[in-house]
Amino acid sequence: MSDVLRMGMVGGGPGSFIGPVHRRAAELDGRLRLVAGAFSRDPALSAEAGRLYGIAPDRAYPDYRTMFAEEAKREDGPDLITIVTPNDTHFAIACDAIDAGYHVVCDKPATATMEEALALERKLEGQDRLYALTFTYTGYPMLREARALIADGAIGPVRKVVVEYFQGWLAQAAENNGNKQAEWRADPKRSGIGGCIGDIGVHAFNLAEFVTGLRIAAINADLVRVVGGRQLDDDCTILMRMDNGAPGLIAASQIATGERNGLRLRIWGDKGGLDWCHEQPGRLVHLRDDGRTEIRHAGGPDLTSQAIAASRLPPGHPEGFIEALANIYADVHRAIRTGRQRPDLLQGIAEGVRSMAFVDTAVRQSASLEWTPICEAP
Amino acid sequence: MSDVLRMGMVGGGPGSFIGPVHRRAAELDGRLRLVAGAFSRDPALSAEAGRLYGIAPDRAYPDYRTMFAEEAKREDGPDLITIVTPNDTHFAIACDAIDAGYHVVCDKPATATMEEALALERKLEGQDRLYALTFTYTGYPMLREARALIADGAIGPVRKVVVEYFQGWLAQAAENNGNKQAEWRADPKRSGIGGCIGDIGVHAFNLAEFVTGLRIAAINADLVRVVGGRQLDDDCTILMRMDNGAPGLIAASQIATGERNGLRLRIWGDKGGLDWCHEQPGRLVHLRDDGRTEIRHAGGPDLTSQAIAASRLPPGHPEGFIEALANIYADVHRAIRTGRQRPDLLQGIAEGVRSMAFVDTAVRQSASLEWTPICEAP
Amino acid sequence: MSDVLRMGMVGGGPGSFIGPVHRRAAELDGRLRLVAGAFSRDPALSAEAGRLYGIAPDRAYPDYRTMFAEEAKREDGPDLITIVTPNDTHFAIACDAIDAGYHVVCDKPATATMEEALALERKLEGQDRLYALTFTYTGYPMLREARALIADGAIGPVRKVVVEYFQGWLAQAAENNGNKQAEWRADPKRSGIGGCIGDIGVHAFNLAEFVTGLRIAAINADLVRVVGGRQLDDDCTILMRMDNGAPGLIAASQIATGERNGLRLRIWGDKGGLDWCHEQPGRLVHLRDDGRTEIRHAGGPDLTSQAIAASRLPPGHPEGFIEALANIYADVHRAIRTGRQRPDLLQGIAEGVRSMAFVDTAVRQSASLEWTPICEAP
Amino acid sequence: MSDVLRMGMVGGGPGSFIGPVHRRAAELDGRLRLVAGAFSRDPALSAEAGRLYGIAPDRAYPDYRTMFAEEAKREDGPDLITIVTPNDTHFAIACDAIDAGYHVVCDKPATATMEEALALERKLEGQDRLYALTFTYTGYPMLREARALIADGAIGPVRKVVVEYFQGWLAQAAENNGNKQAEWRADPKRSGIGGCIGDIGVHAFNLAEFVTGLRIAAINADLVRVVGGRQLDDDCTILMRMDNGAPGLIAASQIATGERNGLRLRIWGDKGGLDWCHEQPGRLVHLRDDGRTEIRHAGGPDLTSQAIAASRLPPGHPEGFIEALANIYADVHRAIRTGRQRPDLLQGIAEGVRSMAFVDTAVRQSASLEWTPICEAP
Repeated sequence: MSDVLRMGMVGGGPGSFIGPVHRRAAELDGRLRLVAGAFSRDPALSAEAGRLYGIAPDRAYPDYRTMFAEEAKREDGPDLITIVTPNDTHFAIACDAIDAGYHVVCDKPATATMEEALALERKLEGQDRLYALTFTYTGYPMLREARALIADGAIGPVRKVVVEYFQGWLAQAAENNGNKQAEWRADPKRSGIGGCIGDIGVHAFNLAEFVTGLRIAAINADLVRVVGGRQLDDDCTILMRMDNGAPGLIAASQIATGERNGLRLRIWGDKGGLDWCHEQPGRLVHLRDDGRTEIRHAGGPDLTSQAIAASRLPPGHPEGFIEALANIYADVHRAIRTGRQRPDLLQGIAEGVRSMAFVDTAVRQSASLEWTPICEAP
Repeated sequence: MSDVLRMGMVGGGPGSFIGPVHRRAAELDGRLRLVAGAFSRDPALSAEAGRLYGIAPDRAYPDYRTMFAEEAKREDGPDLITIVTPNDTHFAIACDAIDAGYHVVCDKPATATMEEALALERKLEGQDRLYALTFTYTGYPMLREARALIADGAIGPVRKVVVEYFQGWLAQAAENNGNKQAEWRADPKRSGIGGCIGDIGVHAFNLAEFVTGLRIAAINADLVRVVGGRQLDDDCTILMRMDNGAPGLIAASQIATGERNGLRLRIWGDKGGLDWCHEQPGRLVHLRDDGRTEIRHAGGPDLTSQAIAASRLPPGHPEGFIEALANIYADVHRAIRTGRQRPDLLQGIAEGVRSMAFVDTAVRQSASLEWTPICEAP
Repeated sequence: MSDVLRMGMVGGGPGSFIGPVHRRAAELDGRLRLVAGAFSRDPALSAEAGRLYGIAPDRAYPDYRTMFAEEAKREDGPDLITIVTPNDTHFAIACDAIDAGYHVVCDKPATATMEEALALERKLEGQDRLYALTFTYTGYPMLREARALIADGAIGPVRKVVVEYFQGWLAQAAENNGNKQAEWRADPKRSGIGGCIGDIGVHAFNLAEFVTGLRIAAINADLVRVVGGRQLDDDCTILMRMDNGAPGLIAASQIATGERNGLRLRIWGDKGGLDWCHEQPGRLVHLRDDGRTEIRHAGGPDLTSQAIAASRLPPGHPEGFIEALANIYADVHRAIRTGRQRPDLLQGIAEGVRSMAFVDTAVRQSASLEWTPICEAP
Repeated sequence: MSDVLRMGMVGGGPGSFIGPVHRRAAELDGRLRLVAGAFSRDPALSAEAGRLYGIAPDRAYPDYRTMFAEEAKREDGPDLITIVTPNDTHFAIACDAIDAGYHVVCDKPATATMEEALALERKLEGQDRLYALTFTYTGYPMLREARALIADGAIGPVRKVVVEYFQGWLAQAAENNGNKQAEWRADPKRSGIGGCIGDIGVHAFNLAEFVTGLRIAAINADLVRVVGGRQLDDDCTILMRMDNGAPGLIAASQIATGERNGLRLRIWGDKGGLDWCHEQPGRLVHLRDDGRTEIRHAGGPDLTSQAIAASRLPPGHPEGFIEALANIYADVHRAIRTGRQRPDLLQGIAEGVRSMAFVDTAVRQSASLEWTPICEAP
């Protein structure tokens, strides 16, 4: 049983969306186990969450500092800490966890501000503790397949990148109607300077770089507040240049009425294209230059080793969001057990800093974007 | 922590497909925990499986009788036993587990023969132990939605039922090439008298009854051995009459080259139709009689309570096969905790007996099916 | 201009669905031109149709015999006659047209009865006139691609054939509500002994043979009258044996509420499978035995010559039902111009006789189909 | 027969893609007939085209001026002239045809330059001749349905517009390999200052305005030459502001390897969304704010009158590109016959001028677009 890593959680109390997802994902493959948590600042709520998570009653704490102190006295205290609190607390918790000697897994974003992100990056330099950011989509087997195919040259040099991410759940002012998920996202104090761009645009940004292996060098960003009364953007479109000169596009929105969670990635090279869509995550469409379209299926025998390693079931047996996050936890487990601080597929502080820089640059630049009217004069 | 049920597993050793799936599903929502197992008759293999499953080394046993005996001495022994062994052993293990006072969860089929199934049914009469059969597909939220919609009259009285289930993995004689999954399925001693019909046809049968609330009254069955040398059918097509007189059809095959796990259910009533396909399990297509097609999405706000209860994530966040099975385990947990022996959605020995009867009737009848040549004379 | 063939039409008056489709299809590629017609027995209606079709007023006749007689006096009379009347008149018109020296194109079925079909077959023996039956679906480029691929061995020997054809437009008794299309189809005097099987089941039958190159040797048929008061089947399911021993299935229904015109063909061989669906006719799905799925697109560069010849537009520019029928007219034009009486892809009296035999056999056999109850006794 | 309009064609000689499409579309419904043409400047080629089009040999001319002069002497000369030549000749031919008293149908774009477009607009002022531009996609029934739904308020005020148009056929330098379609498009002298934006981007632009009823007020355009050696853009992405303030996006590319003709339109309002995709043109997806997705089908009974008028076949019988263009010709016929110069759905010189202005503005502005590097400093 010594192979199992013990996990403490900060955040994830009653009403949390992402806390239970992390618990399920971490434990899915039997290699990590949640043993303690500071799930809520309210002791009763933290205890309630602990019961639901199935941990011992005395290991549900009202604050993470108490958890760190108390668990340090045990032989079976956590090996790593998972942070699933609102964005504005990520930085302090991560720093304290590192200082307490824990490995850290943090839900994105790394921090609430660029300054914090850079400070965390400096703090982690020279550290032997693992710091992993859970950009969940990077755990999907067929996005890993896409990444491997591009690295192998299957579509030739990348020439065009399009990532779209359309949601509709903020098409009305849900933040004024008691929706907790909407409330903190609409509040700059808790979510930072990015609205839609910070919440989902960064996933698009991160995937564009993760899958292509390129960097987004420069942008032109159009951030819009569509629903009246909002302080933060709820819709954003960003023109891009990749560092190899290829044009790119990120289009994200949270006011796309009726959309669910429509993340889609399309990348074309000079020999082919790839197309992945979150609503059918087990498929990767390969547009071939002979005009045929080929679909690769998760679990299939003929995939790259990275995709094979990220599937649990034979083809035709759907796996989803929890399994994708579980693949990241599997990487975390492997990284800690093998002592490699920063395995290839794991996202860490470098990606955290980059995505903060993306948001910062976009917000700043969007404010000064100039528009050219369509002119019918000669 | 008293809410968590402890589970023992029989079968599921190294190389097992379904064992790890059951472990993941049972533990997914934190309400059951695998604590012991007789994973393999080979002590070393059983121990190896125990390590992978993360249970204590002394609780991986070489045979289930030893497990029952040893675990009975502990205060924290299993509350229920999960059976994931080959079909021919299901009966004996289930009987012994019941006798030992355990609740039982058994992967389908209930037993290897009709006689055994009826004997098990008699044995369970008057018992207060829960006996659940995991027809995994009944755990999918959108099939539960379909069931609830039909019960509510959303498509009117059922007039036509079509269930198809196409796989391709036995298109070649994989049983001769070291594929363990293929080996036991192709062997009548281990899998019983049904090949394709017993392996996947019964899922189609079970779903047809589960979703419509009707019973399949009579059949005409065409069971075929397509791949040379096989003793059992690898392709089957069954004409049906539902007990309300409606015509129906089950088409299943394991030699449909290139198919993955293509289960699809279509049901039409006089006011509409429903269409569900396993490769996009989060969608339920509602064919309306005004000519429009409506898609309901798992996790959405506007579903029946049974479907809502069976989703963990918001719309657009795919859940899959493991989550479907986890929904069955959630029902098991609720049934045991509330003392209701046979909750509405759980499949038990009655469904086990029916599906055995279906296989028996089909195998018997198919042997005497007479064919009429197409005759071009007047 | 001598390359253009002149066409006379029988039937297709006001309210006809298929008449205007034939006119459009025949003229689409500029190789045939409608010049005369007996569109309706009512002279005023025939004249009205003539105006809509754009033919000279004096060439719209009230009956086909008059048309034959009058047009024979002209130098620019028809080369061929197209028959788009109700089924019960096909035989007489075809015979008279042949006798009058015309080539004949007839919408399916060839005749209303088996006797007539055989009589027509005898009549055509030794004739040099072309007789073509427009099974429209055989004109789709990607079904021709499927046929060519199978002939080339792309999926190996055919092992399993499934054709489904689901419509919902007769889910209610439309024949009692003034729907003319429903009226004649529900009337055995006008449509013959087959309802659903005769109207759409024969398309499935014909395609199964057209695409595989095999013959359907024997059947077990289940014909059902679902809507009360009907004299003819509105739902049919047929188990089949191909002449190479492969199992097959035809499932057709006109009471599948909410379905439009859901024709789908799936064929598996030992090396792969093919899947074509009418709602996306420009795609042919090739299920490969390496687990990948390949989609071929109409208009693409990499298709067989027969598919290339049947597309007018580059890939991504949809063609549909009219274009499919136009491909058959292109074959008719070529056959007449080159003097080959029965080109490879054209369907003629042989296919007409076979499809009549299919209906006859199925109707007869279905009446005596015996059902085996599902029995839960050992 | 007096209802039929006679058509002369300029361009459309051997090798032309769009000429035969216009001939088929114009004649599809029997209301227009091609009677004369100046198909090529080479008399032999023009004669050859005339033969293929089935017109009288003496009515295939080597140049359009001769055609105008000669046909003017006939009683059965053309009522309208269709222009399907390369872009740089559209202006002169249109002016001459108007001067000769013809109605004009012109394939987009109206002219090669903004100056010409404005000059043509002035020329048409006060004219009673119809001038129609065939933006073919505006003929699709389900885009007309979308337009009518939005006008009726079905999705509420428009908040977001996304039009994408991805092709792959210029992913290599086809213009250097004898591809005539590629040659003139890559040549600024023949196609004007816009490459991808002028060829397909303007379709996206036109549809965005056609369907929403809004105007695109201002843009930020990113035009790229991806394939080395090109003088014109082969990829373009344009940020937009609609005149109601809504954000919008056009993304078009001709270097998206493996794409066919991927035009897609998505529009969201505050009550719902619409989604239309060219590869399944008979479907219109309606994203409802209750979370369900509804699909409307062409030919269905429950559509708006404009969509019903634009379908020839019942639901489930695909119509395509030729039929869409035929709908525009049906509008042209109606407009000429009823004397209304500019019916609602027809696109004319105003739309021609606007789309030229769009290209002009985008090309000019793109040249000075400034990029902001993503900066990781605080």
